[in-house]
Amino acid sequence: MSDLKYFSVADILAMEKQYRTNLINSAPGVKGVYLIGTKSGAGQMNLAIFNSVFHVGANPPYLGMIIRPDSVDRHTWQNILNTGFYTINQVSEAVVKQAHQTSARYESEVSEFEAVGLAAEERNGFIAPYVKDSAVAFGLKLAEFHRIEANGTIIVIGEVQHMYVQEQALQEDGFVALENVNAIGCVGLDAYYKIAPLGRLPYAKKDKNPDWIN
Amino acid sequence: MSDLKYFSVADILAMEKQYRTNLINSAPGVKGVYLIGTKSGAGQMNLAIFNSVFHVGANPPYLGMIIRPDSVDRHTWQNILNTGFYTINQVSEAVVKQAHQTSARYESEVSEFEAVGLAAEERNGFIAPYVKDSAVAFGLKLAEFHRIEANGTIIVIGEVQHMYVQEQALQEDGFVALENVNAIGCVGLDAYYKIAPLGRLPYAKKDKNPDWIN
Repeated sequence: MSDLKYFSVADILAMEKQYRTNLINSAPGVKGVYLIGTKSGAGQMNLAIFNSVFHVGANPPYLGMIIRPDSVDRHTWQNILNTGFYTINQVSEAVVKQAHQTSARYESEVSEFEAVGLAAEERNGFIAPYVKDSAVAFGLKLAEFHRIEANGTIIVIGEVQHMYVQEQALQEDGFVALENVNAIGCVGLDAYYKIAPLGRLPYAKKDKNPDWIN
Repeated sequence: MSDLKYFSVADILAMEKQYRTNLINSAPGVKGVYLIGTKSGAGQMNLAIFNSVFHVGANPPYLGMIIRPDSVDRHTWQNILNTGFYTINQVSEAVVKQAHQTSARYESEVSEFEAVGLAAEERNGFIAPYVKDSAVAFGLKLAEFHRIEANGTIIVIGEVQHMYVQEQALQEDGFVALENVNAIGCVGLDAYYKIAPLGRLPYAKKDKNPDWIN
């Protein structure tokens, strides 16, 4: 391996803005890519790309995400606060450009579904719209949120009320094989990745070395 | 595409435990894989695998992560609370089995570095140990934490004080090309993935359709 380059916090703070943004967003690693669907109180649909969705709990099921309320995320956050509901939709390779394009600064009266050419779908009377062709989607109810004192970003915790998974991805033990539906990952703000399975490892025990199951 | 399978929250709550755990952990998508290095007040080293690290801000640089204090994460959390410092180390394909093995329930007086065979390294007098061969690593100071009311998990926010990146991954614009150092992703609790770049997309503008830069 080549040498490690060291940056102190002072080095990071002194960097040119775009360099620092790229570095600090990409170094932490690969993330999932999601489209968050919401509706305003007046019924206007909104769709926005996010890469900060995380698992909070399975029983009951909760998902978290990070929102920057001073960015293009603000329409999403206003709609979640106003209605209490939102959808999280996985992005696949086929629609990565449309998903990325939702990050343009469209006015609040524009539906990004229409602007970028992704079909919306209403399901089970849920107020927030789903992305029709997404292979994995969740319908969530806002449960709680926390403001990060350090910089004002908001951690949004949602309770999963509805969930949809393409059958070709769903395995016998509940595992969702995302490679079967061409789910993608991203690094930083603009780099997208395919994923390819290395395998699954067994539950770790102190006295055993793990080896690939399949 | 095949059909969408629907699960209501009632369906999810009624599932067999392991099926629900697999489903709710894997469906949200690919995540990065990290080893968190800490030291107890008495100087005992600890190393634990995490997959819930997220970007909070670049200026100043902050990273967040989720800790379940009733799980094997508890030693990590006690050490962070006691000392105020921890490291986040990226996991590459070469050490995925050792990284996974840190999730076995070792006693608190066991160093997982030794138990799984990963070399620890002290750098710049920082109290928390780094994983010597990790291609990207951060040294963090605990900044704040939030308890999620829904289920008691803890959101830990850390200020980046030190950062190390393999030079072969670092691009001219600050982007860290993680594929150059065989960084991996994971889905759910036990499935590991390679990542392969699709490309980068330009900053999205309302009147333009994005296309791959490289």
